[in-house]
Amino acid sequence: MPEQSIEEFKKGLEGTVAGDSKVCLLDGSIGKLEYRGYKIEDLAANCNFEEITYLLLYGKLPTKHDLKDFSRKLAERRQLPKYVIKTMKALPNTMNSVEVMRTAISALSNNVEDARKLTMDQQLDQGITLIAQFPTAAAYYYRLKNGLKPIRPKKKLGHAANFLYMMSGNVADDYSIRAMDMDFVLHAEHSFNASTFAVRITISTLSDMYSAMNTGLSVLKGPLHGGAASGVMEMLGQIGSVDNVNNYIDNALANKQKIMGIGHRVYRTYDPRARILKKTAREISQSKNDMKWFEMCDKIEEKMLKEKTLYPNVDFYSAVVYKELGLPMDMDTAIFAIARSSGWVAHALEQYSDNRLIRPLDHYIGPVDLEFVPIEKRK
Amino acid sequence: MPEQSIEEFKKGLEGTVAGDSKVCLLDGSIGKLEYRGYKIEDLAANCNFEEITYLLLYGKLPTKHDLKDFSRKLAERRQLPKYVIKTMKALPNTMNSVEVMRTAISALSNNVEDARKLTMDQQLDQGITLIAQFPTAAAYYYRLKNGLKPIRPKKKLGHAANFLYMMSGNVADDYSIRAMDMDFVLHAEHSFNASTFAVRITISTLSDMYSAMNTGLSVLKGPLHGGAASGVMEMLGQIGSVDNVNNYIDNALANKQKIMGIGHRVYRTYDPRARILKKTAREISQSKNDMKWFEMCDKIEEKMLKEKTLYPNVDFYSAVVYKELGLPMDMDTAIFAIARSSGWVAHALEQYSDNRLIRPLDHYIGPVDLEFVPIEKRK
Repeated sequence: MPEQSIEEFKKGLEGTVAGDSKVCLLDGSIGKLEYRGYKIEDLAANCNFEEITYLLLYGKLPTKHDLKDFSRKLAERRQLPKYVIKTMKALPNTMNSVEVMRTAISALSNNVEDARKLTMDQQLDQGITLIAQFPTAAAYYYRLKNGLKPIRPKKKLGHAANFLYMMSGNVADDYSIRAMDMDFVLHAEHSFNASTFAVRITISTLSDMYSAMNTGLSVLKGPLHGGAASGVMEMLGQIGSVDNVNNYIDNALANKQKIMGIGHRVYRTYDPRARILKKTAREISQSKNDMKWFEMCDKIEEKMLKEKTLYPNVDFYSAVVYKELGLPMDMDTAIFAIARSSGWVAHALEQYSDNRLIRPLDHYIGPVDLEFVPIEKRK
Repeated sequence: MPEQSIEEFKKGLEGTVAGDSKVCLLDGSIGKLEYRGYKIEDLAANCNFEEITYLLLYGKLPTKHDLKDFSRKLAERRQLPKYVIKTMKALPNTMNSVEVMRTAISALSNNVEDARKLTMDQQLDQGITLIAQFPTAAAYYYRLKNGLKPIRPKKKLGHAANFLYMMSGNVADDYSIRAMDMDFVLHAEHSFNASTFAVRITISTLSDMYSAMNTGLSVLKGPLHGGAASGVMEMLGQIGSVDNVNNYIDNALANKQKIMGIGHRVYRTYDPRARILKKTAREISQSKNDMKWFEMCDKIEEKMLKEKTLYPNVDFYSAVVYKELGLPMDMDTAIFAIARSSGWVAHALEQYSDNRLIRPLDHYIGPVDLEFVPIEKRK
């Protein structure tokens, strides 16, 4: 082959460095995660989703004034244009949440200039608008699917509170809002994961922010990336009770089944996000006086650690949080996307600021120089 | 960093092998391109788009019987469901071709199961349907944008002929059909280009074929990948006449401007597709008795070879072909996507058949362990 001797490469680019980044430090060997140099533990304890998003996009923590301005900007941009709502209404209500969200996000792109013709500020501005609109697209999907009237976003509510409000029509209690917010904060960013890397490839052709978000949604849709929470909840439903956990896991391991929400490509120890979200899951379960799901997860965690030295990932306890918040489990990937949109935009901007087309080579292992046989002579 | 010492890596994964593949042999150093082991020159001289697509998807050339069956299958699946046409009609006619096509392709995905739950045959079947529907989505975009009634696909026409028919309402002459077909054949596949690699990432999360096509469109939309033909035609418009070519290029090179359609990341010699399409461009120009655009391109090619030892890529002569076919130049990326959809499906199937999540690492170069400052104390 040209330019490429028969060299070693890692399948799935595992362990392969694909670029520089200043967005996220992720050290899977010691379970360390930082957004823009700040420890996830500090951020989770102190910041809401808007503050995290500001940090990811601008590379620094906002002042009180900055945060107020930024939060207002997000709140003001939540509504979808009428034609997008009309588009969503034209879709069959058999479509799933990511399909509808992606169609809406694609439709939002109305003659968007390619990246060559936009400044960084204009790209950032588009990104902020998209982050603001993701929850609205998700909630409108849910309302329309269930024959309910879409609920217009409420400017006075924060990002997490407003999403819960657009889903149910009621302002949620503080525990619920905090749990939703925490879930968003912990899912906002995670270095060169599959969707984020594909977002960067999209921008690397000098495509646009809307296209990047479409790619993000399309890649996240896969069950090896987004959508683990619904798998966890399905498993919890099959297990049924805490007493049955040991038996279920023993059987599953004997049959070499994968246990949903356990293990991660990068982490070789406890996923720091899972540690934080476990606490949130416990609290929201206590506030709802419904410990069953949390306790099953806790027991599975203990068992998997003992049997396989494998740790839960962030989606494991997301399942409990969504259950307690009354969110439909089939919206897990859509909710993940609401959060990850801020990481996607941060990486899109970083890629754009120092771009080089991302275009690898393949190692060709097929036949070479075959003789062409005319169609009449083929068998 | 974990798992990654501070190692060398190539920006944009240039020259980096990202996986095995049997779809396409591309040796840029000697200008060699083969689909499934067959030389592009043999394929272009003998096969239409349907035959090429069969070869890419099944890994072998079809018999007469196979090709007839496959062509009929494609022809029977061209129509879009009514709700998708309704969705397209809800979109503003300011949207560009890729935005509308992508929204339509996204909307076609109606509760599609993820890859875990589908067999290879089911995935292939979805891929064939999508390849059949791409031209219809593109042509309907054009008709609706211009206030014209969409034209239903004609089963008796081949893939290229039917696309031209759905655009204009007339069955094109043989020269035009052959030129369109040649353009499709030459754009169908090109190893791990940016869109195809992102398609493989999409499938690697076990997402689905529809999501993969959405990613493909979003990545191809960038002017460093799709859409070079419109850039070439814009340049030809600025140059105005053959006499002005030398002057224009001298000026552009002095100002370090990029010459559209010249040069390629992988080819270090003549792009074999450009060589073939140049002949097609000459023939269609002769048949229309309109040599101006072809002659300008020919002159630019000669000049760039002399000045910079750079060669035209396939999009360079696509511009002339689209011009002579009367296709709107702003549909260049949409037309590219119609052709490339078959390569995308072939790679999606290959990725699915031996999957590993594509998830690289980044080289983190940002700040580490910053002290968290409470918001009241930030300046």
